[in-house]
Amino acid sequence: MASLHAIEFAETNRMHHLQHLMDFLSIPSIGTSPAHRTDMERAAQWLMTFMERIGLHSVKLLPTDLYPVVYGEWKSADAKVPTLLVYGHYDVQPADPEEQWLTPPFEPTVQDENLYARGASDNKGQLFTYLAAAEAYLRTSGRIPVNLKFLIEGQEECGSTGLEQVIQQHRHMLQCDAVVISDDSFWDAVTPKITTGTRGLIYCEVDIQGPRHDLHSGVYGGAVHNPLQVAAEMIAQLHDAQGRVAIPGFYDRVRPLSVDERRQLESLPFDEERFLHEEIGAPALWSGESGYSVFERITARPTLEIHGIGGGFVNEGQKTVIPARAVVKLSMRLVPDQDPLEIARLFEQYVQRITPSTVHVTVRVLSHAHPALVDPHTPAMQAAVEALRLGFGTAPVFLRSGGTLPVVADLTRILQVPVVMMGFGLPDDNLHAPNEKFRLAQFFGGIRTAIYFMECMARQYSSHKVEG
Amino acid sequence: MASLHAIEFAETNRMHHLQHLMDFLSIPSIGTSPAHRTDMERAAQWLMTFMERIGLHSVKLLPTDLYPVVYGEWKSADAKVPTLLVYGHYDVQPADPEEQWLTPPFEPTVQDENLYARGASDNKGQLFTYLAAAEAYLRTSGRIPVNLKFLIEGQEECGSTGLEQVIQQHRHMLQCDAVVISDDSFWDAVTPKITTGTRGLIYCEVDIQGPRHDLHSGVYGGAVHNPLQVAAEMIAQLHDAQGRVAIPGFYDRVRPLSVDERRQLESLPFDEERFLHEEIGAPALWSGESGYSVFERITARPTLEIHGIGGGFVNEGQKTVIPARAVVKLSMRLVPDQDPLEIARLFEQYVQRITPSTVHVTVRVLSHAHPALVDPHTPAMQAAVEALRLGFGTAPVFLRSGGTLPVVADLTRILQVPVVMMGFGLPDDNLHAPNEKFRLAQFFGGIRTAIYFMECMARQYSSHKVEG
Repeated sequence: MASLHAIEFAETNRMHHLQHLMDFLSIPSIGTSPAHRTDMERAAQWLMTFMERIGLHSVKLLPTDLYPVVYGEWKSADAKVPTLLVYGHYDVQPADPEEQWLTPPFEPTVQDENLYARGASDNKGQLFTYLAAAEAYLRTSGRIPVNLKFLIEGQEECGSTGLEQVIQQHRHMLQCDAVVISDDSFWDAVTPKITTGTRGLIYCEVDIQGPRHDLHSGVYGGAVHNPLQVAAEMIAQLHDAQGRVAIPGFYDRVRPLSVDERRQLESLPFDEERFLHEEIGAPALWSGESGYSVFERITARPTLEIHGIGGGFVNEGQKTVIPARAVVKLSMRLVPDQDPLEIARLFEQYVQRITPSTVHVTVRVLSHAHPALVDPHTPAMQAAVEALRLGFGTAPVFLRSGGTLPVVADLTRILQVPVVMMGFGLPDDNLHAPNEKFRLAQFFGGIRTAIYFMECMARQYSSHKVEG
Repeated sequence: MASLHAIEFAETNRMHHLQHLMDFLSIPSIGTSPAHRTDMERAAQWLMTFMERIGLHSVKLLPTDLYPVVYGEWKSADAKVPTLLVYGHYDVQPADPEEQWLTPPFEPTVQDENLYARGASDNKGQLFTYLAAAEAYLRTSGRIPVNLKFLIEGQEECGSTGLEQVIQQHRHMLQCDAVVISDDSFWDAVTPKITTGTRGLIYCEVDIQGPRHDLHSGVYGGAVHNPLQVAAEMIAQLHDAQGRVAIPGFYDRVRPLSVDERRQLESLPFDEERFLHEEIGAPALWSGESGYSVFERITARPTLEIHGIGGGFVNEGQKTVIPARAVVKLSMRLVPDQDPLEIARLFEQYVQRITPSTVHVTVRVLSHAHPALVDPHTPAMQAAVEALRLGFGTAPVFLRSGGTLPVVADLTRILQVPVVMMGFGLPDDNLHAPNEKFRLAQFFGGIRTAIYFMECMARQYSSHKVEG
């Protein structure tokens, strides 16, 4: 097996891979911030250079309206091997609140067997495992057991704008037998997980305009409907007393959880007390949408969250201002078969209905993504099960994810192939929060799994073809 | 009359006074921001230097826990003249949102007969009129018709912390027959106003702590009571459906408006349409507390306003975060006989009552001030009426103010003298907002009025003493 030499290479070159990843992580490629435009270009360039150095071909940038997608491939001389497309993203979340980081977010730091940096787990570290696997094969046997294609975008954290068009436009070049995405975590510290579904998303900004300019509360307080007050009153109407999203029609297309899926979810060891105290740390869990367990609510039910309320004065000290406007940032996580654009329309209609006459309100949809479900019975999914067992020594569980990967729905629909989601992160990686980290054992195990996965894919597809 | 020479001096030295005021305004003395500590010291120093240059005595700093009060005086050889204490403040509001200023807030700019700068009207410009008046007297006749004392603090914009103690401690030095404060505006573009009451204030910060750290809404959305959601739900419960503040007991000590006062308020030409369109610019006025006119609500009724809701992500772009905490900044304006500390207790009790079990909430009172009412029949008030008539050519109206001057209640109580509040600003001066300005005609008219006021005070008190 070619994989044995590749595994040996990976094991003896751990520091080499770690060093390259740290180099990649030191680029603050915050795609949502216009101030980091140059860093985004540097990150894409870094990937191209690395791909070329390890021996990939056709390395190039696929342009979008904003940040390009990085493409690279390796083609086998053997016409019978299957093709695997690896998807990842080189953009990262903003690092704020920066003062809460124990080490600088863009100075990758190894501490207690963890690598701390913004993007360590989401997604540079996980994505890098496939580049390391490709390197391991090419540096040892000079070939990879599958045709390998990389599609690495720069706008995942702002809703993958433009990616759908790139996939559509290059669908022939991207043709494959399966897609793999590692942008997720284990079920727990030792149990791998394969994700069978993702939630969709719409991200909105609601602009509430009251007075023409900021006013002094001593002079105007009592006569003006304070836009922050309006924002609060409107937000309070977005959920009903049962914790359900109050937008009329919001649940109309939600596919009910089957009895089987609910039973399977119940069978998983999910300790609410541990979840509350170790992961969340709030005084109590939210009762949330009535009729569903906590675990169902975070994976298989739609939600609405407020991300920020701008306007007025929030710095240290005091300012007695009635702000001219308030801006509410919020998003909704959607499940099959909710349609993001239909939900956006229902949301906007509801917002207009609950808007008082004292303000002007506008709703802007910043991004949207479809929810997705994946069939666990395909050969690619079975190859992933085997690879995880070999790479980490444990069989994975199958689960829906509460998160959103807009690309999953797009790739499924356009390329008509299964999308394998197997994450190498851990549940406490602090994604999107201060002190994001990637456990070193997960990084090295991820590289091993990526190596095995390519070998298992080749085997599954050859036996599949023989059987078929 | 000594005032004639002083008036002549003021009229021929307009550019000299304007230049000095612009110099004073160019110091960004933002007392609420620790970053401007040095600027605060520079502003206090600037005042001392100016006072000494025009011939005041005993110029000194009276220390507080934070920024000192600037004191200076001029004592007449004539033992019979009354003593006037001028109060003002050298700290200014923060300038944010700075991008909305048409000229830099700390580069004073004259445009269209207005002087634009943070603090132009509130309070450096208005305060400066008394220094200019003193200079005009001393440079022409070498004497002022009254004993004059200046008490200029640096913490008005953060609730005058420490001032009460300074007044208490130096009450013998501060002894006087009346206090004058010009930190307010005309009734309209041509009608002066004397203020007979001010609202009290408590400024609070409500800290809502949910999860231990920020969480990813895709992973935890549905299980966590989002602190911003909690903030909105709690804020929505601070007013009832009739627009009244919903804190139990809030209105218990509010002195009802007398039939006379309501009639007087109604008799003033208050054009709600003009107020809405020219001053506020919102789509509609707030219906607010039912049973009271707009004008009653902004001057004589208590209110509660939200000033900011911190936590989460409000920058450009998207971040799908469930924030660990939300911070609500709010204040309440109070009227006689509400007691700020009692209201703070009632507020905190109510907040605890409506706090859900999913978060920890703490209330911090950042500052408080008592409301005040002033008797319009004292000689000092009558002197002010006369001075305004002479300085601006129009008799003033008497009105309560909706704003807060904590010092008014303190000076009244400790020094046991009337506090004359006559503002030289205009209603559209953009106090606490971008593009604050002071109309040049108001500045020069203010200097004339300050000159006449000292003369009228002397006359009122001598005739008063003769009568008495």
